[in-house]
Amino acid sequence: MKKRIEKLEILDREIKTMQGVSSLLDWDMQTRMPSRGGASRADQQAWMQSRIHEKICSKEMGAALAPFRKKGAVSRLSDRDRALVRDAEKHHVRARKIPAALIDEMARLDSIAFRKWTRAREKSDFKAFAPYLKKQVEVNRKVAKLIGYDKTPYDALIEDYEPGATSAWIEEVFSGLKEQLIPLVKKIKRAPDPPSTTMLTRRYDVDKQWQFTLQLLGGIGYDFDAGRQDKSVHPFTTCIGGASDIRITTRLNEKDLRPAVFGSLHEGGHALYEQGTGKSIDGTCLGGGSYCAAHESQSLTWEDIVGRSLPFWRHWFPKLKRLFPEALSGVKLHDFYRAVNKVTPSFIRVEADEVTYALHIVLRFEIERDLIEGNLSVAQIPKVWNAKMKEYLGITPPNDRLGVLQDVHWSAGYFGYFPTYALGKLYAAQFFHFARQSMPDMDARISRGDLAPLKDWLSRRIYRHGKIYRASELIRRVTGKPLDPGYFMRYLEEKFGKIYKL
Amino acid sequence: MKKRIEKLEILDREIKTMQGVSSLLDWDMQTRMPSRGGASRADQQAWMQSRIHEKICSKEMGAALAPFRKKGAVSRLSDRDRALVRDAEKHHVRARKIPAALIDEMARLDSIAFRKWTRAREKSDFKAFAPYLKKQVEVNRKVAKLIGYDKTPYDALIEDYEPGATSAWIEEVFSGLKEQLIPLVKKIKRAPDPPSTTMLTRRYDVDKQWQFTLQLLGGIGYDFDAGRQDKSVHPFTTCIGGASDIRITTRLNEKDLRPAVFGSLHEGGHALYEQGTGKSIDGTCLGGGSYCAAHESQSLTWEDIVGRSLPFWRHWFPKLKRLFPEALSGVKLHDFYRAVNKVTPSFIRVEADEVTYALHIVLRFEIERDLIEGNLSVAQIPKVWNAKMKEYLGITPPNDRLGVLQDVHWSAGYFGYFPTYALGKLYAAQFFHFARQSMPDMDARISRGDLAPLKDWLSRRIYRHGKIYRASELIRRVTGKPLDPGYFMRYLEEKFGKIYKL
Repeated sequence: MKKRIEKLEILDREIKTMQGVSSLLDWDMQTRMPSRGGASRADQQAWMQSRIHEKICSKEMGAALAPFRKKGAVSRLSDRDRALVRDAEKHHVRARKIPAALIDEMARLDSIAFRKWTRAREKSDFKAFAPYLKKQVEVNRKVAKLIGYDKTPYDALIEDYEPGATSAWIEEVFSGLKEQLIPLVKKIKRAPDPPSTTMLTRRYDVDKQWQFTLQLLGGIGYDFDAGRQDKSVHPFTTCIGGASDIRITTRLNEKDLRPAVFGSLHEGGHALYEQGTGKSIDGTCLGGGSYCAAHESQSLTWEDIVGRSLPFWRHWFPKLKRLFPEALSGVKLHDFYRAVNKVTPSFIRVEADEVTYALHIVLRFEIERDLIEGNLSVAQIPKVWNAKMKEYLGITPPNDRLGVLQDVHWSAGYFGYFPTYALGKLYAAQFFHFARQSMPDMDARISRGDLAPLKDWLSRRIYRHGKIYRASELIRRVTGKPLDPGYFMRYLEEKFGKIYKL
Repeated sequence: MKKRIEKLEILDREIKTMQGVSSLLDWDMQTRMPSRGGASRADQQAWMQSRIHEKICSKEMGAALAPFRKKGAVSRLSDRDRALVRDAEKHHVRARKIPAALIDEMARLDSIAFRKWTRAREKSDFKAFAPYLKKQVEVNRKVAKLIGYDKTPYDALIEDYEPGATSAWIEEVFSGLKEQLIPLVKKIKRAPDPPSTTMLTRRYDVDKQWQFTLQLLGGIGYDFDAGRQDKSVHPFTTCIGGASDIRITTRLNEKDLRPAVFGSLHEGGHALYEQGTGKSIDGTCLGGGSYCAAHESQSLTWEDIVGRSLPFWRHWFPKLKRLFPEALSGVKLHDFYRAVNKVTPSFIRVEADEVTYALHIVLRFEIERDLIEGNLSVAQIPKVWNAKMKEYLGITPPNDRLGVLQDVHWSAGYFGYFPTYALGKLYAAQFFHFARQSMPDMDARISRGDLAPLKDWLSRRIYRHGKIYRASELIRRVTGKPLDPGYFMRYLEEKFGKIYKL
C-alpha cells in the first residue's frame, strides 16, 4: 500500500504545484499587473486551469486511484493517507463527469457574467444582469445533474465548498439561527445608549494604517518569512507555495479604520491556518486548511472573537492611539470597543456586524437553493430579496445595488458557497469555547498581547490537520461534539448583552 | 500554406504563453517572494520548464513543422511567417538533440554551481568553484557536440544567444576593436584634467532616486500601463505578457546615483524594444525584440548614447538638481556630464565605462572560447585573466573576486553570451548614426526632453520587427550596410575626444 500511496502522492503534489502557479497568476493580477496585462493573463490562467483539469481527469490519476477502489482497501490506511485517497478520488470522479466543452462554456460565462454584473451593479440595473444570472443558474443546474445527487441538485453544488454538508442540514441549522437572531436584533435595536462610531470615520492616514496592520499581523503570529501583505480592491488570502508562501491582501480607506484593521485580521486568520499546515501534508492537496466553513471559522476567530474583544484592545488600543493621536484624542478604550461592535441592520453583507451577519447569509442561502431547485425564477429575486430583508432585518434596500446586486458570487457561478460564511461563525464559536476552557488565563494573556498560546492551541488541534478531516469530523475531534449553534448564540448573547446592557 | 502557418502558430503562441508564466515565477522570485518560498518556487519553475521543453520537442510540433521542410516550401512565405517557421524548427531540432536526462543534469548543475559560485565569490576562493566550472565546461562541450557544428563547438553555443554569429567572425570583429581601444584607453589615461565624480557619490535619498527613475522612464516613453518598475538585487527586464506586460527592475544605492539612473535607462531601453513589438507578432515567439546583441543595442542606446549625452542632461539635470538641491549644490551641467562619462580602467565589468567596457568582453570571449575548444583548462583561468587585464587595461586584479569570480554567467552555464554585450555596443552606434542622419534636429529635441521622434524612428525600423530579422539582417535593412565597428569607434573618438580634449 505504501508504494501505491507514494504513486498517488506524486500526482497530488504535482496538482498542488500547478495550483500554486495558478494562484500566483491570480495574485499578481489583483495586486501588481499593469492595466494592459489582462488579455495575456487570461490566456495564461486558462492554460493553467486546463492543465490542472487534465491532470485531475487523467488516466494516470485513474490508474493511481484504482487499487484503492477495492473493498476494504483504504481501511488500513492512516487518516492522512485515507484523506489523500478520498479527495483525489472525489475530484477525479467529479471532474470526469463534466465534459471539457462545458468547462469551457462555464469559463466564458463566468467572464462575461462578471463583466455584466459589474456594470449592472454600478447602474443598479438588475434587469441588465438577469439574463446572465439565468444562464449561471441553468449551467449550475446542469452541472449538478451531471455530478448527481440524492435529494436536491443544490447538494451537488455545496459539495464543492463544504463536503458532507447537505441542504437539509443547513436548512435546519439556519432555521434555528433565524428564530433566535431575529428577536436578538430587535432587542438590540430597542436598547438605549447605542455605541457611537464617529471616532472610527475620522481621517486616518493610510500609510499609518498600513503600518498598524503589519504590527497586528506580527502580533497574531503571521510569519512574514512565509508570506506578505499587499493591497487589493477585494481582500483575499492565497496559497502560492505550500505553507511557506501564504499571501494576504487588505484595503485601506482614509476615512474608515475598519476595512484595514479587520480585513487584515480576517485574512491573517486564514493565513495562520495555512501557515500552520503540518509537515506531513505540506505540498499535497491536503495542505492549506480544511474546506470553507472551517477555514472561515479561523478567519473569524481572529477578526471577531479575538479582534473585536475587549482584552485584545486593552493591548492594542494604546498603540493605535499613539499612531493616531489626533483622530483618537480623548477616545476611551471602552467607547472604542463598543464602536467596533456596533450592531446595525444594514444593507451590505460585508459591512455587517457579528449579530446581523448570519441573517444576510440565511437570506442568500434560501434564495440560491430555491433558484437551483427551480422553485424561484431569476426575475422574482429582487422582490423576494427585499421581502426577506424586511422580515429578517426590518429594512428594505432602496435599490438593487444595495440589494441583490451587491455580491460577486452568483455572477462567478458560486452557488453553495454562501452558507459556509455563516457556518464558519458557528464553528468558530464552538472551537473557541473549548480553547478558552483549556486556557483559564486566556483573557489576561490577550490583554498583554500574548496571543501565542491561542495560536499554538489552534495549530495543534486544527491547523496542522489541513483537509485530513472535514469540518464535521474536526469539530468532534476537537470539542467532542457535533456542531451546536448554541455556542454561537451564547457567545453573542453574552458579548452583546454586556455591550448593550440587555 | 496559410492553414499550416495557423496550425504552427497555435503551438508557438502556447509556448509564448507558457514562457510568460515562467517569467512571472521568476519575476516574483526576484522581487516579491517571501524568503521561505524558494523550495516550492523551484518545483513550480522546474514543472513549467519541463512543460515548455516537452511542447518544443513534441510530436505535435514536429508534425506542424513537417510541411515546411519540403524544398521550396518556405520560399513564398512572408518574412514574418518564414521567421516563425525558422525559429520553431531550430528550437525543435535543437531541443530534441538534448536528452531529457541531460536537461535534468544541467538544471541540477546550474543550481549547485550557482550556489558554489556565490560562496566562492564571497571568499574570493576560485579553487572552491573550479570543480563546478569544470563540470559546466564539460557539460557545455557535450551539448555542443550533440547539437553539432562546422568549425568549433563554441559556434553551437553562440547560436542560442546570437543566431548566425560565428566564433571566427566575432574574433575578427574583436581583434579590430582591441587594436583601436587599447591605445584609446591609454590616451585617455594620460589626458590632463580628468573629470571628478565626487558629486555622484554624495547622499541621495533612495525614495527621491526612485521618483526620478520613474520620471526618466516616462520621459523615454516607457508605457506604465504595459509594465511596471520594481526593485531587485540584479536589475532585469522580463516579458510577462506579450508587449502589454513588460516589467523592469532597478537597484538603489543611497551613496551613488548611477546604479538607479543608468540601470533604469538600460532596462527601460530593453523594455521599449519589447513594448514596441508589432501587432502581427505580439503573443508569438517572434515578439519581444530580436536576439541578444540587437536587444542590448537598444538598452545601450537609451542608457549610453542618449542617457550619457549632453543634450539629454540639458533637459534632465535641472530636474535632478531640484530633487537633490543639497547634493548637487553648485554643480554645473558640464561637470556632471563629464562625471557620468569618466573613463577609468577598472576591475568590475558592470561598472565599466563606454570605452573600457568592450575590452572586458573581449577578455571573456577569448577565455570562454578557449575553454570550450579545449585549449585552456579551468585551473589556468585566473592566470590568463589577470594577464589579459594587464594587457588590455593596464591593471591587475588584487584577487579573484575582482577578477574571474565577478560574473554569474559561467556558473549558470552561459557560454557564448558575453560577446553579445560588446556586439550590442557596435550595433547601437551604427543604428544611432543613421537615426541621427534622418533627424537633423535630434540634439535640439533631446535638449527639450522630446524623445518621441527617436523612439518612433526606432520603433518603426527596429522594435516592431521583433525576431523576424536577425541582427545581421536587421542592420542591413536599417542602415544599408553590414555591421561596421567603425561607427562605434568614431562615436567614442568624437565623444571622448571632446570630453578629454584629446
